[in-house]
Amino acid sequence: MRYLMTFSYDGSNYNGYQTQPGLRTIQNEIEKALTFINNKKKTPFTSAGRTDKGVHALGQKGHFDLDIDISDYKLKCALNSNLPSDIHVINVKKVSDDFHARYNKVYKEYHYIMNIGEYNPLERNYVYQYNRKLDIVSMQEASKFLLGKHDFKSFVSSEDVRDNYEREIKKIDIIRDNDKIIFKFIGDGFFKYQIRNMVGTLIQIGNKKRKIEDMKTILASKDRTKAGFTAHPEGLYLIGVNYEEKIDNLS
Amino acid sequence: MRYLMTFSYDGSNYNGYQTQPGLRTIQNEIEKALTFINNKKKTPFTSAGRTDKGVHALGQKGHFDLDIDISDYKLKCALNSNLPSDIHVINVKKVSDDFHARYNKVYKEYHYIMNIGEYNPLERNYVYQYNRKLDIVSMQEASKFLLGKHDFKSFVSSEDVRDNYEREIKKIDIIRDNDKIIFKFIGDGFFKYQIRNMVGTLIQIGNKKRKIEDMKTILASKDRTKAGFTAHPEGLYLIGVNYEEKIDNLS
Repeated sequence: MRYLMTFSYDGSNYNGYQTQPGLRTIQNEIEKALTFINNKKKTPFTSAGRTDKGVHALGQKGHFDLDIDISDYKLKCALNSNLPSDIHVINVKKVSDDFHARYNKVYKEYHYIMNIGEYNPLERNYVYQYNRKLDIVSMQEASKFLLGKHDFKSFVSSEDVRDNYEREIKKIDIIRDNDKIIFKFIGDGFFKYQIRNMVGTLIQIGNKKRKIEDMKTILASKDRTKAGFTAHPEGLYLIGVNYEEKIDNLS
Repeated sequence: MRYLMTFSYDGSNYNGYQTQPGLRTIQNEIEKALTFINNKKKTPFTSAGRTDKGVHALGQKGHFDLDIDISDYKLKCALNSNLPSDIHVINVKKVSDDFHARYNKVYKEYHYIMNIGEYNPLERNYVYQYNRKLDIVSMQEASKFLLGKHDFKSFVSSEDVRDNYEREIKKIDIIRDNDKIIFKFIGDGFFKYQIRNMVGTLIQIGNKKRKIEDMKTILASKDRTKAGFTAHPEGLYLIGVNYEEKIDNLS
């Protein structure tokens, strides 16, 4: 039986999503809980994607296979009672055996949250604190160069080596909500550090260290050294993964 | 030179506000920072009041004396650079030598935050998660019995032994904001566990375990065993301490 799971986590105390020997990771905690529930049979978990150390998720998704037959609600409860308090299963639903959380993905939404007001110690792991002036309109203008299909190599970590850096960004919104600035990205996938590097570059445009048009040049250069700094991980949230077209046919 | 300081903290990783030998406390961290700044001369800090283990503050206040002369802004920076990231100084201002953070206090505002929606792992230390039905109108009605001057002994921890349990509660609001229920209390002081015990009793009225009028009987009994459970600390916030009348004359 294949299941699709929607889950949230606080990335503060993890070495990122993906299993690494000897380190505490989200994937590792989930596979431990699944293996326990699946009568101790080693049970792999495939997520829609990875998040880095310190990055949070409110609507991450992934699939797994179980040998046992159990209701969706009971499975949710069993998982939550076997997971640490900083990982939470929001729901599980049965899907067809050919559903794949990574290959079937349609769109992902990420938010990056900055606080430009007084530092709040309760938010220290949940927003990027920034205390200089920022021009939102310049950042909004510059972000338009990133919309659509592009080769995003300029914004990808040099650790993430691949043949093809092309992806499509469907929508970018940059809004101010009181003392918060929220960058919202929707796209068909993002490479390692891509969002944090795009945000770092937008911040440099917002604080006038770079010009709006620099974004166009940076994107065209396909050269990581041309882009801005990597914005801190604590401000980044995977908000949702949208497979709805697929799922609606199945449920 | 006497200073009044306004500060915030995340109580999650502390054994409460007050210094206790061998334990990490807010007071201890602040006194370490002050002592360092005050040329290593041991410098005591007097807060408006204590908060318990796990309880947060967004607008706590306290006073201290320094031998050195330093601008308010530089002192704020010096303190924040010597404090851990979960304690933050919002501002400091010079006050007259007879100002006293505990004796001069006028009103304190506390909020208690419950989440009645889906559990969010990022809020696990910042709200009290509650997943049963609650009737807000019953809680609002019952809270009216608590308004005004009363002997609050029924709601005070048995550890907090004193001759006089009289205090005045000026205002109570219980509001719903999406998936949050927020209890707001303004009064001239609260005893150990008083708010958490009042909230615990209100919750039992909200979930129909007790009747609205029970609040009146419990208050009159002056008997701690008659009141409800002690609501968890993570939902409680000291929002502000208001000495404005006093301060306005000084600044």
